[in-house]
Amino acid sequence: MVPSAFLFHFLFFFSLLISFSFSDSDSDSDSNSVGPTFHRVFPRPLIVEYPEFEAGLRCGAWRVAGEANNLGAWRTIPEECTEYVKEYMTGKGYAVDLEMVSKEAEEFARSVPLGSDGKDAWIFDIDETLLSNLPYYAAHGYGLEVFDHEKFNNWVEKGVAPAIEPSLKLYEDVLNLGFKVILLTGRSERHRSVTVDNLINAGFKEWDQLILRNSDDQGKRAVLYKSEKRSEMEKDGYRILGNSGDQWSDLLGSSVSVRSFKLPNPMYYIP
Amino acid sequence: MVPSAFLFHFLFFFSLLISFSFSDSDSDSDSNSVGPTFHRVFPRPLIVEYPEFEAGLRCGAWRVAGEANNLGAWRTIPEECTEYVKEYMTGKGYAVDLEMVSKEAEEFARSVPLGSDGKDAWIFDIDETLLSNLPYYAAHGYGLEVFDHEKFNNWVEKGVAPAIEPSLKLYEDVLNLGFKVILLTGRSERHRSVTVDNLINAGFKEWDQLILRNSDDQGKRAVLYKSEKRSEMEKDGYRILGNSGDQWSDLLGSSVSVRSFKLPNPMYYIP
Repeated sequence: MVPSAFLFHFLFFFSLLISFSFSDSDSDSDSNSVGPTFHRVFPRPLIVEYPEFEAGLRCGAWRVAGEANNLGAWRTIPEECTEYVKEYMTGKGYAVDLEMVSKEAEEFARSVPLGSDGKDAWIFDIDETLLSNLPYYAAHGYGLEVFDHEKFNNWVEKGVAPAIEPSLKLYEDVLNLGFKVILLTGRSERHRSVTVDNLINAGFKEWDQLILRNSDDQGKRAVLYKSEKRSEMEKDGYRILGNSGDQWSDLLGSSVSVRSFKLPNPMYYIP
Repeated sequence: MVPSAFLFHFLFFFSLLISFSFSDSDSDSDSNSVGPTFHRVFPRPLIVEYPEFEAGLRCGAWRVAGEANNLGAWRTIPEECTEYVKEYMTGKGYAVDLEMVSKEAEEFARSVPLGSDGKDAWIFDIDETLLSNLPYYAAHGYGLEVFDHEKFNNWVEKGVAPAIEPSLKLYEDVLNLGFKVILLTGRSERHRSVTVDNLINAGFKEWDQLILRNSDDQGKRAVLYKSEKRSEMEKDGYRILGNSGDQWSDLLGSSVSVRSFKLPNPMYYIP
């Protein structure tokens, strides 16, 4: 999506700035360069300073750092990135990124040979992986507000989270290829019924297992809880070939899958 | 950096397109939506179709997928992303991303308590982590050409790769904090001397060990070679707290560090 009015405003003034900069030449010095130093091997870059552009670059770098698991634990998105995250989540950026991850996962799923014992498994997380809570987060600052368990639970209990379409396509593809689908979520066991209804209404069917946090799992860090559950799957004879999740804590730890697929999520972080 | 003439051209026509689209209203349908389906919970996004913008989105998604380790092995960058990768690498995008990773690594380095035995280690990869081969890749299509060992070795043997400045800053910071720095590179032992000279000329000093591939390591996949070397470090009593590399094969495998930092690199992939 093009961020409409904001982008139009921005591009218009940006074009003006660039025209000025062309006549003003490259008066900016190298002193604020942070990349490799080239001593004029390359032509000097034309640097246009523009606060919103700079914030966009920083917020883009912050988002990519999150996707690459470079960030420490964080509770809310950076305040200066409020508009950036909103534009990303409601625009084409998020959609195209979801498509890319789904396509890569599907290519892997098609390439890997499956056994004949029905024990090849693909794990899916639920929130921001199969189901989207974007309507909730849109009403709560896209991650700018500190996470509120009670409010979020009220949303979950409505059972109206829409499907993430590229994940639904991947889900159906891996089922058709013969994988066993295992759903592994941080949601509580008490939300089993509403979660099942929500999943089915959104188009997800035929899972092999749906694993939610039971009373023993409460308070455990996600990466430990999910590693323990994957370890149990392996003990049950499953070969975990693929794992799709929007948090690194869905994917790392022990008993990790052959290939992991990190779906984009700049709105919240679960350790 | 602003991609100068290209961006100016692009923004100018883009602004025109947006003005047209404002009058033309949102005639584009929802049919090509790939994200979550919201059934009008949100206002319909204004979608402007523009080939270069679309390619930019796809190439951005491809780059982020690489940083998130979602891509399978690849030999060259996608042809449509040639201009995108060039703009990213020579522009502010790469510089800001490098800064972000270095800053996060430094924050972690400052936060973690060190022992008094001098056995807290930080591992750095060399190519595209401490030293930049961008001058070489600029002459070889920024990753569009298939990797040529002989040509690349000729470049390495010149010993003129510049420092990646944010990594040099991190390097000095972790040394000052009391970490032992271990350099672990895929370069061959026969390049030890030129590598040492290049590192020192670029400002890197006081490493504890410089580990290169010896004859036993040739032909091993990087992820195995580096895991084995990290395992040896652990046997020598080192605690590997930080690890900085531009390839996931620098960071994954066994004996992984407490925190890993993935530097950006959309130009090549080492399995």
